[in-house]
Amino acid sequence: MDDDAGTLPLKEDFSAWYNDLLWRAEIMDVRYPVKGLYVWFPYGFALRKYVYQRLRDLLDRDHQETLFPLLIPEQEFMKEAEHIKGFEEEVYWVTHGGTTPLDVKLALRPTSETAIYPMYALWVRSHADLPIKYYQIVNTFRYETKQTRPLIRLREITSFKEAHTVHATWEEAEEQVEEAIRLYCEFYDGLCIPTLVSKRPDWDKFPGADYTIAVDTIMPNGKTLQIGTVHHLGDHFSRTFNITYEDKNGEQKFAQQTCYGISERSIAALISIHGDDVGLILPPAVATIQAVIVPITIGKRHDDVIAAAQKLKTDLTNAGFRVNLDTRDMRPGAKYYWWELRGVPLRLELGPRDLDAGKVMAVKRTGGKMSIDLARVTAGITCVFNEITDTIRARAEENTKSRLCFVGSLDNLNATLDTGRVAVVQWCQQRECGDAIETQTNASILGTEVRSQYVPAADGTCVVCGKPGKSTLVGRAY
Amino acid sequence: MDDDAGTLPLKEDFSAWYNDLLWRAEIMDVRYPVKGLYVWFPYGFALRKYVYQRLRDLLDRDHQETLFPLLIPEQEFMKEAEHIKGFEEEVYWVTHGGTTPLDVKLALRPTSETAIYPMYALWVRSHADLPIKYYQIVNTFRYETKQTRPLIRLREITSFKEAHTVHATWEEAEEQVEEAIRLYCEFYDGLCIPTLVSKRPDWDKFPGADYTIAVDTIMPNGKTLQIGTVHHLGDHFSRTFNITYEDKNGEQKFAQQTCYGISERSIAALISIHGDDVGLILPPAVATIQAVIVPITIGKRHDDVIAAAQKLKTDLTNAGFRVNLDTRDMRPGAKYYWWELRGVPLRLELGPRDLDAGKVMAVKRTGGKMSIDLARVTAGITCVFNEITDTIRARAEENTKSRLCFVGSLDNLNATLDTGRVAVVQWCQQRECGDAIETQTNASILGTEVRSQYVPAADGTCVVCGKPGKSTLVGRAY
Repeated sequence: MDDDAGTLPLKEDFSAWYNDLLWRAEIMDVRYPVKGLYVWFPYGFALRKYVYQRLRDLLDRDHQETLFPLLIPEQEFMKEAEHIKGFEEEVYWVTHGGTTPLDVKLALRPTSETAIYPMYALWVRSHADLPIKYYQIVNTFRYETKQTRPLIRLREITSFKEAHTVHATWEEAEEQVEEAIRLYCEFYDGLCIPTLVSKRPDWDKFPGADYTIAVDTIMPNGKTLQIGTVHHLGDHFSRTFNITYEDKNGEQKFAQQTCYGISERSIAALISIHGDDVGLILPPAVATIQAVIVPITIGKRHDDVIAAAQKLKTDLTNAGFRVNLDTRDMRPGAKYYWWELRGVPLRLELGPRDLDAGKVMAVKRTGGKMSIDLARVTAGITCVFNEITDTIRARAEENTKSRLCFVGSLDNLNATLDTGRVAVVQWCQQRECGDAIETQTNASILGTEVRSQYVPAADGTCVVCGKPGKSTLVGRAY
Repeated sequence: MDDDAGTLPLKEDFSAWYNDLLWRAEIMDVRYPVKGLYVWFPYGFALRKYVYQRLRDLLDRDHQETLFPLLIPEQEFMKEAEHIKGFEEEVYWVTHGGTTPLDVKLALRPTSETAIYPMYALWVRSHADLPIKYYQIVNTFRYETKQTRPLIRLREITSFKEAHTVHATWEEAEEQVEEAIRLYCEFYDGLCIPTLVSKRPDWDKFPGADYTIAVDTIMPNGKTLQIGTVHHLGDHFSRTFNITYEDKNGEQKFAQQTCYGISERSIAALISIHGDDVGLILPPAVATIQAVIVPITIGKRHDDVIAAAQKLKTDLTNAGFRVNLDTRDMRPGAKYYWWELRGVPLRLELGPRDLDAGKVMAVKRTGGKMSIDLARVTAGITCVFNEITDTIRARAEENTKSRLCFVGSLDNLNATLDTGRVAVVQWCQQRECGDAIETQTNASILGTEVRSQYVPAADGTCVVCGKPGKSTLVGRAY
């Protein structure tokens, strides 16, 4: 790898910090010769793997994983009118096989409704087949014309998790929407990422949905990042793709559907929210390497220390931890810097004096250190990992709280957003007033029906028209 | 799913059996509306997952997993002349983003040399960076114009495992080729799939390689299926992509490379070789469901039996087995048929009499049954799984042996191949004689330097010209 000169910019210069950290910490290489496409380094890939394994574990409770083709024939892709409108400008088209023009153009999936639902039409026959809860984790493509950013706005989303469910009734689909939100909140809580859940305004819902519930988080520069969406599709797609079932009375009915997705923006949020001026800070649950052992060897005791460090590595590995033993010929200080940059939650320093005392010095990436008995090291480290996780979560929550601001009038809204905050305002939910808010602030109405421990439910009057309003999130979104 | 009338064709009608079994056993749905693209059912997807997890586990010993983009810009793709020749007729091209023609056409990777090596050129600087051993498991694309077959010849290979290594010397790369072959043989041995390893003739090597070692297996109809390839790339690609390193003496040198791949043909072989007239037979190591519990409930004892079956399921699941408890309202015989079709290695029948005796009846998918003590059920099942695996492996090996035939003259070769066999002949390794063999038999020279327990090394005289020859595999290949 390329360890050129220079140091990581300060996190307050967020955009520079983020771009620089991605390659310095070996998450992604941005030098691939196509705009908006990136290469995962092994270290970053492993992080991605552990994050997605958590998502799989949650989904596997009552979903089944499956896999549909990437290529969608034009006639299927073009069936649902609203859906086309939403995606037609950003779809990549395959037009040639070898030097031969294809009879039917093939779209690279931007999302898979139009690949999956023709098959659902074949699979769903009777109420006994329902519900269906399938998901897949796949690469999807968007021809982004705006500025691209690694993990945030890219042309190949390498790990889009999309679930597609089918139900007998609208209410059952609605309940699935609620279940998906609970699942996403549990997922993000496991990553210590605070979430703001809200219902997107009608003009910002998924093309072809009855309604969309979104999960946002607040990035270090105060911008919001959409890190998950859940859509109630009603029967829009089932009417288009003819997904019908015979109910208990022998009648044919259109099925009700939902879909919900999470992209690698989950990794972007993880990196951005927890990291600091020194580098990444990874929660132990998903860290590529959870603990690094740095032997402090001096003269004659060298072999003793190395042997003890190797034993420690073996013990911890056997206990299920992901551990690295750093025996490179470098100064300890340079090793500390190396692993702090890469966000390893715990450093274990083992020197002759520690060894004599039957201890190891545990230094937390979040700050602070303590001596742990080697005889009870597994329990000790489990305990320290919990402390680290708590600290990471508490800091992220504190930051989210400090970024949220309740604003009572349209006049103050712009100034509040300019300070890197997300505003909670009262809004009547009429389009005109929504447009007024968005135009005046160069921001977006994220949503109403806000579910967040940080935003108490409250009724008030619309900041534009003064009619009865509801708590609404307004922010500058990525 | 669609359980229409009809039964599985006999396996001797292999092609019909294979196509039918794929959907009946819920591996893949072939009805996706683009030729050569298929949908993985959850049951098939889980099988794929367990098979690929084994491959990952083997590679992770000393490789690192990574991920490169799907889309390759035309100018990179076109850099290596031989490589282009090998792939230009079967590459899919993306030419449009939305309605806008792209400035640079983008190839869907048929394989990733031209995506990865420009990055290797940036990453490799010094001998200290070597070796690099990275792999990725990705979807790749081939515009196949021949008849497509699920898992065998398809347009989207959904799980191509490709490793790409970089070394300082030709000899180190050669040693990596040997290591990759050992690894592949271990992988296939774990799947009970017999392998024939040989060196492909020069005219059939990978476009841009010094030489290619291939892994083939014999399918039930006697055709050979290439299920893995390992290529020594020499410095062909490093010269094209300028992958150089500074050696210990400070000189710039071109790196030496290898690459090796396995596709979902590994699943095709697994299904085809082990299955029988009743359906799939899956080795316990990779079976989606390893054991199914079928409670035999009669009258008053219904609740007792169900409770015991649930406890059995919990015990086995906690012990790490993948177990299904089938409580559907169906006759036991119909359940037996259902799970046999799907290849579950072991059926556990639990009725009132078994319960009274503290036993469960274990019925092996490979034939035979035995009573197992419930008190020692975990150990008992582990033991039965080993028996099943041994039986599956022994049958596959027996079949491979019976399909191999040593042929001493060109006259008999065609007749031998016509009986569904693979021939071992002596060949002088000259192109002219190779052409004569291939033309006369409508078959392929698979390779020389055969490594197989079934093919003893032997020198003889070429079946065409009578000059000194070496043992050579000749077969009709997929």
